[in-house]
Amino acid sequence: MSVHFRTISDLARALRTREISSETATLECLGRIAERNPSINAYIAVLADQALAQARQADAELADGHDRGPLHGVPISLKDIIDLEGVPTTAASNVRSGHVAAADSCVVTRLREAGAVFLGKANLHEFAFGTTNEDSAFGPVRHPLDPNRSPGGSSGGSAAGVMDGMAYTSIGTDTGGSVRIPSAACGLVGLKPSLGEIPLDGVFPLSATMDHVGPLCQSVTDAGIVYDALLGRPAQNRAPRVMKETGVKGLRVGLLRGYFTSLLDTHVGAAFEAACATLSDAGALLEEVDIPHAGDIAPIYLHIVLAEAAAIHAKTLDSHAEHYTPNVRLRLEMGRYILAEDYVRALRGRDVLIEEVDAALRGRDALLLPSLGVPAVRLGAATVKVGGGEEPVRNIMLRLTQLFNITGHPAITIPCGTTTDGLPIGAQLVGRRGGTDDLLSVATGAESLLQPGPAR
Amino acid sequence: MSVHFRTISDLARALRTREISSETATLECLGRIAERNPSINAYIAVLADQALAQARQADAELADGHDRGPLHGVPISLKDIIDLEGVPTTAASNVRSGHVAAADSCVVTRLREAGAVFLGKANLHEFAFGTTNEDSAFGPVRHPLDPNRSPGGSSGGSAAGVMDGMAYTSIGTDTGGSVRIPSAACGLVGLKPSLGEIPLDGVFPLSATMDHVGPLCQSVTDAGIVYDALLGRPAQNRAPRVMKETGVKGLRVGLLRGYFTSLLDTHVGAAFEAACATLSDAGALLEEVDIPHAGDIAPIYLHIVLAEAAAIHAKTLDSHAEHYTPNVRLRLEMGRYILAEDYVRALRGRDVLIEEVDAALRGRDALLLPSLGVPAVRLGAATVKVGGGEEPVRNIMLRLTQLFNITGHPAITIPCGTTTDGLPIGAQLVGRRGGTDDLLSVATGAESLLQPGPAR
Repeated sequence: MSVHFRTISDLARALRTREISSETATLECLGRIAERNPSINAYIAVLADQALAQARQADAELADGHDRGPLHGVPISLKDIIDLEGVPTTAASNVRSGHVAAADSCVVTRLREAGAVFLGKANLHEFAFGTTNEDSAFGPVRHPLDPNRSPGGSSGGSAAGVMDGMAYTSIGTDTGGSVRIPSAACGLVGLKPSLGEIPLDGVFPLSATMDHVGPLCQSVTDAGIVYDALLGRPAQNRAPRVMKETGVKGLRVGLLRGYFTSLLDTHVGAAFEAACATLSDAGALLEEVDIPHAGDIAPIYLHIVLAEAAAIHAKTLDSHAEHYTPNVRLRLEMGRYILAEDYVRALRGRDVLIEEVDAALRGRDALLLPSLGVPAVRLGAATVKVGGGEEPVRNIMLRLTQLFNITGHPAITIPCGTTTDGLPIGAQLVGRRGGTDDLLSVATGAESLLQPGPAR
Repeated sequence: MSVHFRTISDLARALRTREISSETATLECLGRIAERNPSINAYIAVLADQALAQARQADAELADGHDRGPLHGVPISLKDIIDLEGVPTTAASNVRSGHVAAADSCVVTRLREAGAVFLGKANLHEFAFGTTNEDSAFGPVRHPLDPNRSPGGSSGGSAAGVMDGMAYTSIGTDTGGSVRIPSAACGLVGLKPSLGEIPLDGVFPLSATMDHVGPLCQSVTDAGIVYDALLGRPAQNRAPRVMKETGVKGLRVGLLRGYFTSLLDTHVGAAFEAACATLSDAGALLEEVDIPHAGDIAPIYLHIVLAEAAAIHAKTLDSHAEHYTPNVRLRLEMGRYILAEDYVRALRGRDVLIEEVDAALRGRDALLLPSLGVPAVRLGAATVKVGGGEEPVRNIMLRLTQLFNITGHPAITIPCGTTTDGLPIGAQLVGRRGGTDDLLSVATGAESLLQPGPAR
């Protein structure tokens, strides 16, 4: 069984011409879940009955002329760390057993208002604290193109589900790259808006000062549609975004090299260079820019995330440590030894990095760098080959994304090619703080060049 | 030798009628310093020559019609933690020996622009990390009314100097009460503006998320004059503030009791009750309000200040620990053991307290509580008598002020009476975040009732 349409915008048009109903689109996604989820493990919970009821309501509203905008009647999934009233929020952890969400999270309230249909809760790396989805109380998520590979994480169930036709989009969270990493590994568009733009109420925290909610989608236009809904923008402003016909000509792009291109898989490096050449040929002005303290990104990130995660989990580590998966437990326990003076210093380092990214963006429309240094990694792999050597998987996964969680700048990954085995590769664009809309415009132009042809 | 005028506003008027020159006013202050400083120890450095040069320049400018506003030609002191170009910023510590400020702090730049004359650098509790001024590399500051008592701290040299006619105002810093505590103990008006209003560049930090710069003055009007200059408001807006003739009639005041009045010296308690009655008789509407988590104020404050101070001092503790005074060193070393998870929890507690103070202010013009639970304490005292028992001095000193450093609300202390021995007692008013101007208006009305008569 396959779904009729790949993108939200195509489905939205077809729903309005009555080519398809929301109920049929939802049934198609549920059929795809029935077919594929047993091997991919993208969903922790499937909410077939209530999704179909929502779909029928959407069909009735649209028939009545009550149009909630482009998400109306669109079947989507939610990373299972986001509260949906009456449904457990497992966070992929046995620590949460018995939990049932007493109320909708703020983002779910807004998505309901936009008419979205909730298919179910997507699998994730336990408590969003990892990048491979191998540590989940519900088992690992598998990559749709190769069941021995990870789709990336922590929003891995979200990414695998959208890639594989089990949802039109998924709402994920991104604390160090957890939307962008699996999006890159699965050939999707993944958006992390500016820090603080999307409310986090009802989303279980990992690191309160770096957590972001964002969508995983099949196109930049779709990411814009979901972003608008997550912002709670009124429906009349949620008309599908106009693709800029001017493309990228004259766009001023700061190219991050050095630290950011020093440890890349050869396919990723080649695809990224090809993407730069394509953009440059199309008239974009690429200039190399520097983040002087790039070498401090990882320690600053780790001190902040470990300390903040430890503060959140301290009580359950004291009472139920054995309910965590061993790797996540170890990481959380490590966080309990971080000293406040080091955390405070990391916060000062954050201020330095914010200034450096702001400076790199001065007089420019966006920054450009790869999204993920390697294609989808093998499940169970401890190291990967990059830059002529072996590196621990965990060091590589967050390397290119975590800076913008520290600084809060909006960032988006778009597909920019594949390996010779057909594994997707992503390019990352970064915009000004508060400039997510501008970033989406830039990404729309880049997307049309980097993924040409009728497939998109 | 005594000075002609007590307040900045009186001196400002006299400078413009040529009743006195800035040079004479400065000479009077320098004379007073020569007479009193050997016993009071309010100043670490006196800058007679450059102060007189500034005063003569102010006289020339005023004669030329170049009027910089009410601070023009007014002799003031700076707490010796604030950079003045070419002068050491000792922070009252041997750790800083050899330091000379390479540039003016931002507040000094603004005060220069407003025409202030800098008499010298005021003594303080080492690194502003204490409330009694007993720990200073330059010896303790003594209370002008009783040399065996402390003027309070950490801006103790600032307070004693202004109380004793050695300056018309002093610029202090307040991280847990360091402007308000010595102001209360010395019968002055002390203002802590909203968090973040006054830039801290060039002010040596104690706790970067709770530090505030603020003035110690003889009147609320004077505090407003200095506040305007610290904000960098243009001179044409710096005209002396108009005293509200309406007084406090109809003013809605939230009265903080419970935690805030449970440990008071009997004189302080009686003076505070009398102040409440006076305000109520004048038509203010006093209603009791509650801060539900008041019991958590001290632990939240300590975790934040100790962690942030430790981060700042870690390097010098490693290299020059023996250069600190023993008490301040001990406190800083303690901070190095604070865990990040506890600091992060304290930051979450801060958010709760901000909401509770905001809630207490809803529908009200200000909150009212005592400023300091005891009159000026004896130098060397470890405990004081309050509420029928003995309490450690340090616990009592910060108890009523530190909440508003945690939450960032503006707060001002005004004199509200004396003990039978003539030691001053202060009442504290608290305004909305960002509402320092409104708080000054409220305080002006209260001041005229609580300190009636020609003495002010």
